[in-house]
Amino acid sequence: MKKAIAVISGGMDSATLLYHLLNSGYEVIAVSFNYGQRHKVELGYARRLVDHLKKDNRPILAHHIIDLPIAQYLHGSALTDDIDVPEGHYAADSMKQTVVANRNAIMLSVATGVAVAENAEVIAAGMHAGDHPIYSDCRPEFAARFNEMIRAANEGYGHPDMRLLTPFINNTKAEIAEGGNEMGVAWEYTWSCYKGGEIHCGKCGTCVERREAFSLAGVVDPTSYEYEGELPTEPNVGEAA
Amino acid sequence: MKKAIAVISGGMDSATLLYHLLNSGYEVIAVSFNYGQRHKVELGYARRLVDHLKKDNRPILAHHIIDLPIAQYLHGSALTDDIDVPEGHYAADSMKQTVVANRNAIMLSVATGVAVAENAEVIAAGMHAGDHPIYSDCRPEFAARFNEMIRAANEGYGHPDMRLLTPFINNTKAEIAEGGNEMGVAWEYTWSCYKGGEIHCGKCGTCVERREAFSLAGVVDPTSYEYEGELPTEPNVGEAA
Repeated sequence: MKKAIAVISGGMDSATLLYHLLNSGYEVIAVSFNYGQRHKVELGYARRLVDHLKKDNRPILAHHIIDLPIAQYLHGSALTDDIDVPEGHYAADSMKQTVVANRNAIMLSVATGVAVAENAEVIAAGMHAGDHPIYSDCRPEFAARFNEMIRAANEGYGHPDMRLLTPFINNTKAEIAEGGNEMGVAWEYTWSCYKGGEIHCGKCGTCVERREAFSLAGVVDPTSYEYEGELPTEPNVGEAA
Repeated sequence: MKKAIAVISGGMDSATLLYHLLNSGYEVIAVSFNYGQRHKVELGYARRLVDHLKKDNRPILAHHIIDLPIAQYLHGSALTDDIDVPEGHYAADSMKQTVVANRNAIMLSVATGVAVAENAEVIAAGMHAGDHPIYSDCRPEFAARFNEMIRAANEGYGHPDMRLLTPFINNTKAEIAEGGNEMGVAWEYTWSCYKGGEIHCGKCGTCVERREAFSLAGVVDPTSYEYEGELPTEPNVGEAA
């Protein structure tokens, strides 16, 4: 059976990724990272989603929640430091404050180490087109260069076809919501809010993005939000990226 | 002043790297990694070398020893697991047991995150030609691909000329010993032995490599070894790599 290492955050995209991999015939080792994010509540959601799928006898071999105590050295992000999480539309310039320096290269490099140790064919991650404007490490250019890098780094070790798989990298989040819904993703076991409170705030960049994705996809959003008012009216630049 | 992030292990190569960067006009942030290696004694040597240089008023801004508690997920290396460290010549096939899956990509990705946060121009690492036969993540091909990857990953963030610098990647370790000696590297504050005992064992791959490098360079080796007998007679494949 083909084996995949799935990097899952606890959000909608990685939940859909997990279903996509399982439906594509992979057995999966899920990895999540505790890198000092203030919304580490997402890790509990990742865990609950994995447990939910395992109860359904889906082939998830393990779920590693890996500590990366590096936030203090990568200072300057609203996700880890004592800086207010910006509100409003995800693509706005203020969202640059949510960038964690080199985050995807770090997490995917650790996931690649796991893939080599487990002889997995694929390292999978759920970045999508809506991430492109702000996060350079979510763009196709990064994914291509990362793939070449890990091939060189591990020549002679691990699976000979080992590669990074990013099935949604050219999709909008609304398309992910739509596709996830068709696969029956248990959205109640996903978390998006960067503020990491009791319930989703409904106002921060990723809450706005989540609400908008469900709405555009015409999918019923089961989430309780603190603020359920109007969404900002800026265009969804993710679609144009 | 130009700023460099130097990845230092506590060994000869990274000690020489540190002097090289300081002599080249960089101010340096040193980073070392505790990834569960059994020879973590090397980290104390890295610390002592940094302290020694700081007493000389060399511009080392900080030395971060970063915990990466990931060894349990990258199982299978004699450096982290309960497997005997192989003895004999470094280039021998048995040394493959000392490979830690994707280690350099992981450590250099974290160092790159620090570089972005600190707006450093350079991430520097001390890999050399003698590492090439066994460690694919020490080869020029890896360094080139890594450079392209971090450029894509951090477009718009950090220093616009940020890059990986590997000044010794085509040198033998003997050449590093020779160059380091000319710069007055304090070899007594370096550690090589993979076994991580009280003193260097003198027999494991990296002890053999260390002894050989000093000997070929005609440099007095100040190290105390448990075993000080004959070196293995296999060719130094590092020179041919």
